[in-house]
Amino acid sequence: MDETLSIRPATAADDDAIWRVLEPTFRAGETYPIPPNVTRADALAYWRAPSNTVFVAEQGGDIAGTYYLRANNEGGGAHVANCGYMVAREAQGRGVARAMCGHSLDEARKRGFAAVQFNFVIASNERAVHLWQSCGFAIVGRLPGAFRHPRLGAVDAYVMYRSL
Amino acid sequence: MDETLSIRPATAADDDAIWRVLEPTFRAGETYPIPPNVTRADALAYWRAPSNTVFVAEQGGDIAGTYYLRANNEGGGAHVANCGYMVAREAQGRGVARAMCGHSLDEARKRGFAAVQFNFVIASNERAVHLWQSCGFAIVGRLPGAFRHPRLGAVDAYVMYRSL
Repeated sequence: MDETLSIRPATAADDDAIWRVLEPTFRAGETYPIPPNVTRADALAYWRAPSNTVFVAEQGGDIAGTYYLRANNEGGGAHVANCGYMVAREAQGRGVARAMCGHSLDEARKRGFAAVQFNFVIASNERAVHLWQSCGFAIVGRLPGAFRHPRLGAVDAYVMYRSL
Repeated sequence: MDETLSIRPATAADDDAIWRVLEPTFRAGETYPIPPNVTRADALAYWRAPSNTVFVAEQGGDIAGTYYLRANNEGGGAHVANCGYMVAREAQGRGVARAMCGHSLDEARKRGFAAVQFNFVIASNERAVHLWQSCGFAIVGRLPGAFRHPRLGAVDAYVMYRSL
């Protein structure tokens, strides 16, 4: 089996695979501010919003992860991108998120963005915080108690940012 | 003429007045990350998005300002509100923004929100920054160069936050 990770733009045919990646993480409600009972249609409408460009990471014939890239604002803020990443449960710990992040930074540069901003990184998601820091992102803001974690209660969320 | 300021929910009949308030500020492109050439339809679709509750401030029979209130996120982040405020050019310096801010904090409390977050307060808009600070908001994040000001070039934007 080919274990090379390849990242490509998503097509409509990837909807089922993307939902399989999104569903358990959204259901858990611990890392994204999305209702845990979100429907497949609403989840895909969120991830694949018209403003988003969506990519999938394939490994061994399976979709191991997905990310979106978009402008975080319009007008005078349109030069800052925003991304969201999700790794399939069974593919965690294999560097998929790091590979997608690197890919997204290249894509953002190609599209002329000058920076990437993450609006809401939940502080208890320490693995993600450390990963983004190792990818060059700095914590530039702290939102006190901005996330109600289903097990931990009120936790902070970070705004993270890196120039390109 | 009655100079009392009264704040009430907007109706569809207020669209023209709201656009008259929004247009010069969006055209100037100095304080909101909105394309300066935004159309009336797109501006109203943004301000009056289905997720927003919109209010207008009336004074002497005219609309002196408008604001929207919404949840900043869903799921575990749904307890934090977000607002945007705009004062008519001819009504500036009369306390309209402060009155709308006070009204919005009351409305947010009534709706069960626990905090209010401003996602993108442009640092060069010092009057606004100081006003929000005097209304209890703290700068909790600084986005370096996240706004391209039409006269000043790259300026920072602040994330501001207050608990209710």
